[in-house]
Amino acid sequence: MTIQTRPLIYDAPGGTFEGVIAWDDAATGPRPGVLVSHNWMGQDDFDTGKAIALAELGYVGFAIDLYGQGRRATNTDEAMALAGELGSDRAVLQARINRTLELLRGLPEVDAGRTAAIGFCLGGKCVLDLARSGADVDGVVSFHGVFDAPPFANKPISAKVLVLHGFEDPLATPDQTVALGRELTDAGADWQIHMYGNTSHAFTAPGANNPDFGLLYDAKADRRSWQAMRNFLDELWG
Amino acid sequence: MTIQTRPLIYDAPGGTFEGVIAWDDAATGPRPGVLVSHNWMGQDDFDTGKAIALAELGYVGFAIDLYGQGRRATNTDEAMALAGELGSDRAVLQARINRTLELLRGLPEVDAGRTAAIGFCLGGKCVLDLARSGADVDGVVSFHGVFDAPPFANKPISAKVLVLHGFEDPLATPDQTVALGRELTDAGADWQIHMYGNTSHAFTAPGANNPDFGLLYDAKADRRSWQAMRNFLDELWG
Repeated sequence: MTIQTRPLIYDAPGGTFEGVIAWDDAATGPRPGVLVSHNWMGQDDFDTGKAIALAELGYVGFAIDLYGQGRRATNTDEAMALAGELGSDRAVLQARINRTLELLRGLPEVDAGRTAAIGFCLGGKCVLDLARSGADVDGVVSFHGVFDAPPFANKPISAKVLVLHGFEDPLATPDQTVALGRELTDAGADWQIHMYGNTSHAFTAPGANNPDFGLLYDAKADRRSWQAMRNFLDELWG
Repeated sequence: MTIQTRPLIYDAPGGTFEGVIAWDDAATGPRPGVLVSHNWMGQDDFDTGKAIALAELGYVGFAIDLYGQGRRATNTDEAMALAGELGSDRAVLQARINRTLELLRGLPEVDAGRTAAIGFCLGGKCVLDLARSGADVDGVVSFHGVFDAPPFANKPISAKVLVLHGFEDPLATPDQTVALGRELTDAGADWQIHMYGNTSHAFTAPGANNPDFGLLYDAKADRRSWQAMRNFLDELWG
C-alpha cells in the first residue's frame, strides 16, 4: 500500500476551488470514490487525513472544498462568516457539492458507478444536502452534522443515509433529530440515525475542547462512528 | 466448530424455569457468555437459534426463560397475559433475569468476568431492566425493545447499553426513544441508540407480517442490527 495525495483545482458555481485527492498507488483498477466534506473552518489537514484513511480502506478519498481556493477560516469568527455565506444559498451549496461528485466520478482511479460522501459538522449538512438534491450517489454519512432542511422541497432521496450524532449536540437537538428522521422518511430515503449518549458536537475532532459550547472530542464516539461508516460502506459495495 | 445445545432447568424467584445453553464443543477455555431474553411468546426456537448464532461467534449463548417451565404462549392472547404478568412486578422481573446472569457466570464454559445480554421485544425491556438493576454485566443489547422504565428509581447503570430500534415502532415512539436516552444518561450509562428508518416493531422476526399493528420483519434492519451487536460485543471483549 502506497497512499498518495495530489491537489485538485476545479471550477464550480461561484468560482475556483481546491481540494485534495488521496489514493493507493499500489492498487489497480477503479475503486469506489468517497467525498469528504469539510467543517466550518474549510478544507484542511483533518479532511485530507480522512481522505487518506479512506484510501487505506481501499477507496479513493476526495477532500473537497466548498468555500473557494485560499478561502479558509483561521478563527471562529471567520468560520462563522464563511459557513454563513455557504449556508445562505442552499441551491448553490447543492450545485457545488454535486460538481465535486461529478469530478470524483471522472477520476481515473474511481469506479464512477460506486460513490459516496462523508462530512463533518457543516460537512454533514452538505452531504445531507447532496442526498436531498437527488444526487445519484450510493450513500452519505453525516458525522455530528447539522440537520436544517433547505427552504425548498427535496427531490426523492435515492442515497442511503447514515447519521452519526451526539445526543448532547446543541446544534442538533433530539427534536431536530426526530424531525430529520421524518424528513428523510418523507423523501423515501433508506436511513439510519445512530445517537451516542453523553456526546457533544465535534466528537471526531481531536482538538475540540469547549464543553460550554457543546464542542468536545470523544474518543469512543469517534471510534464507534468510524466503525459504523465502515460497515455502511461495506454494505454499499462489499 | 461443533455447536451443541443442552437444556438448563433452574429455580428463580417465582418457580422453576427452563432455558437452553449453546456452546462450541470444539472450543477450549472459558469464553464470554451472553444471555438471550425472549419475546412475549416465551423462550422458543428463535431464541435458541440466537444462542447458537452467538456460540458460532465464539461466545456461550444462554436462551433464558422468564415465564416458567412449560409456560409458553401459543397465541397472542396468551402472550399478552404472560407478558402482562411478568411486567406487572418489575422487581421480580429484575430478580429473575439477575438469577440467569448468576447461572451464566457459573457455567463451566463461561468466563464469569465477561458477560452480556441481548433481548428481543419484551426481551429488550428485560435486558434494559437488567442494566437498570445495576447488574455487573458488561453490556446489554435491546432489539426492538420496549422502553418504559420501572416504577422505582434505577441504580446507577454500569453496563454499556445498545438499543436497536425501528423508527416506526408503535410500541416505542420517537418521544419514548428520546426519553429513554435521557433516562440512561441520568443513570450514568454509556449508551447508543440506533434508529432505523421505515422500520417497524419485530424487525428481526422472520414471520412478522402485520403492518397494521406495526409488526414487520425487515431483512435489512435484521442484518444491520446483528452487525451492530457484533461490533458492540467486539468492543467489549475484542
